[in-house]
Amino acid sequence: MSETFKAAFLEIANFILYSLNKLDLNSIGKFTDLLVSAYKEERAVLVVGMGRSGLVARGFAMRLRHLGIHSYVLGETITPPVDKDDIVVAISGSGTTQIVVAAAEAAKKMGAVVVAITTYPDSPLGKLADIVVFVPGRTKVAVMDDYFARQILGLHEPLSPLGTLFEDTAMVVLDAVVADLMRRLGKNEHDLAKRHANIEVP
Amino acid sequence: MSETFKAAFLEIANFILYSLNKLDLNSIGKFTDLLVSAYKEERAVLVVGMGRSGLVARGFAMRLRHLGIHSYVLGETITPPVDKDDIVVAISGSGTTQIVVAAAEAAKKMGAVVVAITTYPDSPLGKLADIVVFVPGRTKVAVMDDYFARQILGLHEPLSPLGTLFEDTAMVVLDAVVADLMRRLGKNEHDLAKRHANIEVP
Amino acid sequence: MSETFKAAFLEIANFILYSLNKLDLNSIGKFTDLLVSAYKEERAVLVVGMGRSGLVARGFAMRLRHLGIHSYVLGETITPPVDKDDIVVAISGSGTTQIVVAAAEAAKKMGAVVVAITTYPDSPLGKLADIVVFVPGRTKVAVMDDYFARQILGLHEPLSPLGTLFEDTAMVVLDAVVADLMRRLGKNEHDLAKRHANIEVP
Amino acid sequence: MSETFKAAFLEIANFILYSLNKLDLNSIGKFTDLLVSAYKEERAVLVVGMGRSGLVARGFAMRLRHLGIHSYVLGETITPPVDKDDIVVAISGSGTTQIVVAAAEAAKKMGAVVVAITTYPDSPLGKLADIVVFVPGRTKVAVMDDYFARQILGLHEPLSPLGTLFEDTAMVVLDAVVADLMRRLGKNEHDLAKRHANIEVP
Repeated sequence: MSETFKAAFLEIANFILYSLNKLDLNSIGKFTDLLVSAYKEERAVLVVGMGRSGLVARGFAMRLRHLGIHSYVLGETITPPVDKDDIVVAISGSGTTQIVVAAAEAAKKMGAVVVAITTYPDSPLGKLADIVVFVPGRTKVAVMDDYFARQILGLHEPLSPLGTLFEDTAMVVLDAVVADLMRRLGKNEHDLAKRHANIEVP
Repeated sequence: MSETFKAAFLEIANFILYSLNKLDLNSIGKFTDLLVSAYKEERAVLVVGMGRSGLVARGFAMRLRHLGIHSYVLGETITPPVDKDDIVVAISGSGTTQIVVAAAEAAKKMGAVVVAITTYPDSPLGKLADIVVFVPGRTKVAVMDDYFARQILGLHEPLSPLGTLFEDTAMVVLDAVVADLMRRLGKNEHDLAKRHANIEVP
Repeated sequence: MSETFKAAFLEIANFILYSLNKLDLNSIGKFTDLLVSAYKEERAVLVVGMGRSGLVARGFAMRLRHLGIHSYVLGETITPPVDKDDIVVAISGSGTTQIVVAAAEAAKKMGAVVVAITTYPDSPLGKLADIVVFVPGRTKVAVMDDYFARQILGLHEPLSPLGTLFEDTAMVVLDAVVADLMRRLGKNEHDLAKRHANIEVP
Repeated sequence: MSETFKAAFLEIANFILYSLNKLDLNSIGKFTDLLVSAYKEERAVLVVGMGRSGLVARGFAMRLRHLGIHSYVLGETITPPVDKDDIVVAISGSGTTQIVVAAAEAAKKMGAVVVAITTYPDSPLGKLADIVVFVPGRTKVAVMDDYFARQILGLHEPLSPLGTLFEDTAMVVLDAVVADLMRRLGKNEHDLAKRHANIEVP
């Protein structure tokens, strides 16, 4: 019956698992170092992302707060101005999302350090970033021509639409960064729970 | 160097992959049927969740919109009142999150169909739901006693803190449901892209 | 004791009250006509605004929903793509807020009708709008030169900072538009309450 | 033509203006003192509100941030846990909004100071608050019986529906509190502008 469900689940889960071999652990290490310095030197970390990438960004910002880092989300009520030496984490699979690129450019002008989480290091976002964390994925939609070409050729249409593979993989990458930060900052799960909101609303 | 990163990445990615065998495909099938009827009969779908589960809920609501389903997010500006035969998708790993349980109870009184996405079918949320979609995970924090007991016993402390395993697995489960919905509603990636916001902001 | 509180309260309240004489009731009438057609022809209304103007936009979008109009908020989870004949209500006191102007430009390209709520009809936003609803206010901050010039000249520094006068007046203008819409659509307070969210969260 | 617009505008603007005489300047003074101590002692201020009252709360939280106060909004990504001596500002016209009352109760248990902004000092919210800032308004909807009774009696149906008068008046009250805070903290408009987000999104 729901063979499609199973096939799609396996497509995504295997994509995530095999991404590990494609990651650049060196740049992830630099990103983690930067977040350790954000903790120790109380540097603000502003996360930026749109659509579902914006949700991944928010989930990461929550964990940074649980760790005691001053994280903020672009577009929420209390976002502060970006200042020199602040850290901006910009998430965009394609690396071309206009508002994310514009925010990263503005942040560079303020003297902030920009980290790009993207599938395309050569994209506008990747090119202007100080650190690029490569995360495997696809561009949002294959261009129309490619699409019909692929259909004519009977090529496999992916089951997970648009940015799904990038978004799901980015979430796991960032959650593994959080685990590494816990170790480096000497924190356990109970330290995080103490900073978890105690009056919760959706 | 970043052995913890790798170990945590593998812990999460393997947890997701092996979750497939533990899922109840029958209840996922019923959930998918319900969403197909939401599409055909224009029933509203309201997603509810808190903290990082709320972000997973939002990501799912976006894809439902891309598919042409009238989804809403509890707590955003334009959320409508819940009505008879509406569908409420409530996400809570522990199944005890007070506001989610309260929202689900209120929805039941209005005559809505409640779907629980949870690790605990016997939780307050699981018990009142019409359909329970079981998603493997852990409770948010092991109780303090257990924690010290485990430490004394030298038991493995998980690398992925709090609800991480539940949240990441729930995202993949719901993305696979989206893939199945695409097939059943006869939609491809380009149909989804047409309903994707064209003026994007974080 | 709190003479400043009283003086500031009077400054804002009187500013709002005397704004009535400066409003262009003709353009407000056209805006209201457009919203009546949105109701009757089920045209989507997308509100756009940043910072505190964005909050005024959200408050208006809520009331449009209560009236039965398909309103959306740029930047929330379920915002649909903008289409031909949709209505975009863009709020910016200065009329220069980059993202609002960019969103309005994009909307024009899609064939949407753009309404600008602004203090400056000759601003970039005002110039590209199909209907300009003038709302008295000040620009966000007097330019530095002006500021020191005024200080040197001993000129009165306003008690209500930045966009306050614009934002508070815009809220009242839009609430009065809602009252007029109620009359024209034959709705009373109880009709609105029926569409009020019944499971409320912040 | 748009006589209703004018009548509603005057109803709201006059309601705000004449509210000044009904305010309790003593309790507003205590509230302002508390916010001055929040600034000086770096105490966190958490604002809480639902629907349009929640938007008024957010607008106030933005200005507190511009003043250099550590404000947060219940329900946003980075909301911290509430701690002893934190300040919780809960806004509810009726003083009965369930989630707001529940949040205020939880905050009291944590040892926080609760300020209620409400029309009803004897409401559940008013009764549990440490400071009550009375703001004139109406309850959300006249009860059905009253409504039909009033209709039969030909009594005036208010032009501004539901919580409008409370919400608009609360915004002006809080903006006047901000003006008083500026004076007491020795800040001018340019100090606020420095803390204004410089990478803005809706």
